[in-house]
Amino acid sequence: MTWDTINVGTHFDQESSVFVAPRRGVYSFNFHVVKAYNRQTIQVNLMVNGWPMISAFAGDQDVTREAATNAGLVILEKGDKAYLRLEKGNLMGGWKFSTFSGFLVFPL
Amino acid sequence: MTWDTINVGTHFDQESSVFVAPRRGVYSFNFHVVKAYNRQTIQVNLMVNGWPMISAFAGDQDVTREAATNAGLVILEKGDKAYLRLEKGNLMGGWKFSTFSGFLVFPL
Amino acid sequence: MTWDTINVGTHFDQESSVFVAPRRGVYSFNFHVVKAYNRQTIQVNLMVNGWPMISAFAGDQDVTREAATNAGLVILEKGDKAYLRLEKGNLMGGWKFSTFSGFLVFPL
Repeated sequence: MTWDTINVGTHFDQESSVFVAPRRGVYSFNFHVVKAYNRQTIQVNLMVNGWPMISAFAGDQDVTREAATNAGLVILEKGDKAYLRLEKGNLMGGWKFSTFSGFLVFPL
Repeated sequence: MTWDTINVGTHFDQESSVFVAPRRGVYSFNFHVVKAYNRQTIQVNLMVNGWPMISAFAGDQDVTREAATNAGLVILEKGDKAYLRLEKGNLMGGWKFSTFSGFLVFPL
Repeated sequence: MTWDTINVGTHFDQESSVFVAPRRGVYSFNFHVVKAYNRQTIQVNLMVNGWPMISAFAGDQDVTREAATNAGLVILEKGDKAYLRLEKGNLMGGWKFSTFSGFLVFPL
C-alpha cells in the first residue's frame, strides 16, 4: 500500500483535494470544514464522481469559528473520485484548520 | 470480510440501525445526528447491548440544522449490538443528513 | 497487535492521555472535547511531540454543552507521542463526555 491510497490534508483546498481510489473497496472519510468570521450558512458535501454522498452544515450567527463536519463509509470503485464541494454559502473569511481525510478500510 | 461486518448508513433510523458484531474485536464508530428546525437540546448515546458508551449533544437555539456528533473505539464481543439511542429531546423536524458508521479496526 | 497499539478513551484527561506509537505508520485520530456551562472560546490541538497537527474550536455563548471536534490521519514514527492540548481557554465547568481515540490504519 503506497501513499497514493490515502489523502492526508490539513488544509482545505477546493481545487486540488481530490482523492482517487487506487482500488475497489470500502473507504472511511472524515471532514471538518471550518468557517471563520462569517455569518452565512454553509453546506459542504462529500462528493463521489459528481454525486453527493454525505452533507454537513454550519450556520451559527454569533461564533467566529465553526465547523461543518461529518464522516462515513463509502464504497468506491477503482478510479472513483472523492472530494468536498461547498454546496451553499462561501468561505470568505477563511477556512484555516479545516481537514479532510480518508483511508481504505478494506478492499472488496 | 463480508458486508455483514460493516454498517453503512446515511439515514438515521432508530428502529433498524443496529450493528451486530460478527466477531470479537475493536470497532470504530462515528455518528452525526442532525436536528433541524428544533430548539430543544438533544442527547444521543452510542449504546452497546443497552449500555451507553459515548454521548453527544446538540442544543443550539438559533440554528436551523445542528449535529450531535462523536466517535470512538469500542471493544465488542461476537454478537454484541451497537446502535444509537436518542436519550433526551426528540427529532421532530427531521434528521435528514444524519450518519452512523462503524467498522472493524482489528480482531481480538 | 496488542492493547498498546490503541488508545481508547471516553474521558478526557490532560495528564495521562498520551498515545505512544508502537511502530511507524499512518494513524487515525478523532477527538471531541466537550465544554459545559462555559462561555469562553476554547481551542484544542492534537499535538505530536510538542507540535500542533490539527486544531478544533468551540466558542458558542448560549449553549450548555459544546464540542471542539476534529479528526485526521497522521504519520507517526515509533515512539512518537500524540496527545491533546488545550491551547486556549479552560475546561472549568467540566469536560464530561469528551472522547479521544486513535488507531493504526496501516504500518509504513
